[in-house]
Amino acid sequence: MEWTTVDLGNCSVLRALDVIGKQWAMAVLREAFNDVRRFEDLQQHLGVSRSVLSRRLNEMVDDGLLDRVPYREGAGRERYEYLPTEKAWGLYPVMVGLMQWGDRYLADSDGPPVRLVDRRSGRPVVAAVVTDDSEVCAPSDVAVLPGGSLRTRPTGD
Amino acid sequence: MEWTTVDLGNCSVLRALDVIGKQWAMAVLREAFNDVRRFEDLQQHLGVSRSVLSRRLNEMVDDGLLDRVPYREGAGRERYEYLPTEKAWGLYPVMVGLMQWGDRYLADSDGPPVRLVDRRSGRPVVAAVVTDDSEVCAPSDVAVLPGGSLRTRPTGD
Repeated sequence: MEWTTVDLGNCSVLRALDVIGKQWAMAVLREAFNDVRRFEDLQQHLGVSRSVLSRRLNEMVDDGLLDRVPYREGAGRERYEYLPTEKAWGLYPVMVGLMQWGDRYLADSDGPPVRLVDRRSGRPVVAAVVTDDSEVCAPSDVAVLPGGSLRTRPTGD
Repeated sequence: MEWTTVDLGNCSVLRALDVIGKQWAMAVLREAFNDVRRFEDLQQHLGVSRSVLSRRLNEMVDDGLLDRVPYREGAGRERYEYLPTEKAWGLYPVMVGLMQWGDRYLADSDGPPVRLVDRRSGRPVVAAVVTDDSEVCAPSDVAVLPGGSLRTRPTGD
């Protein structure tokens, strides 16, 4: 097939980037994939204002990337957490691919912040193109370990 | 490891998006991955002005994504083509992942424009997270076939 004969008006790559090319959307998904899903926790870890975060989360709910779910701790008032949808998890290979590419070409000299391994075998995982009958790692199979340059924030202050 | 203790200042995902979040950079890479690498061909297929394309290609050369290589056809004057670097090919799984996600969630009702298969086995390929000892498909192993909604442009006019 001649590539130049393909009509690009419906290019799936560019449509996808339209949704996730915004850095903040991927930053929120990165948090949500790592179990940071409550409004207060997201706000603290992302370091944005309540109003900005609220607007962004609403946009991601509208895009079908997050489900807004109420929770209540003890006798406290109702709050919300944001769970990644199946559509969001569909971006997991893209997230890992972006991470490994950034690790390789854009990381600080002291190495990447985290590394990913398969919980079952302990082997490093990679995002790759494989045939559809290959054995793949589900997000729940992947553990996040400190990388070469893990800098933890001081706690308890 | 507690995710919220990770310092996000050096997040590889966001650094990567900083480079490839621009839709046009991924559009150019999509072309270059599909052997559309000459200035004239890129201009025609992307439908942008010479000056805009020239500026974008220069930026991608500066980012280490493209190598600018002279060529000459017959007695014609020297022209340039833009070859993807190893760094650019490192984004191949991301490109395929974006494409399959866009195909699944954002395609027109008549289906995605193209589909990718492994040349050796004929099986569909997917971008996935796998252990680093998995058998993967190199870009040269992957054939681009018409998808459900291939709309070719009229030729010869």
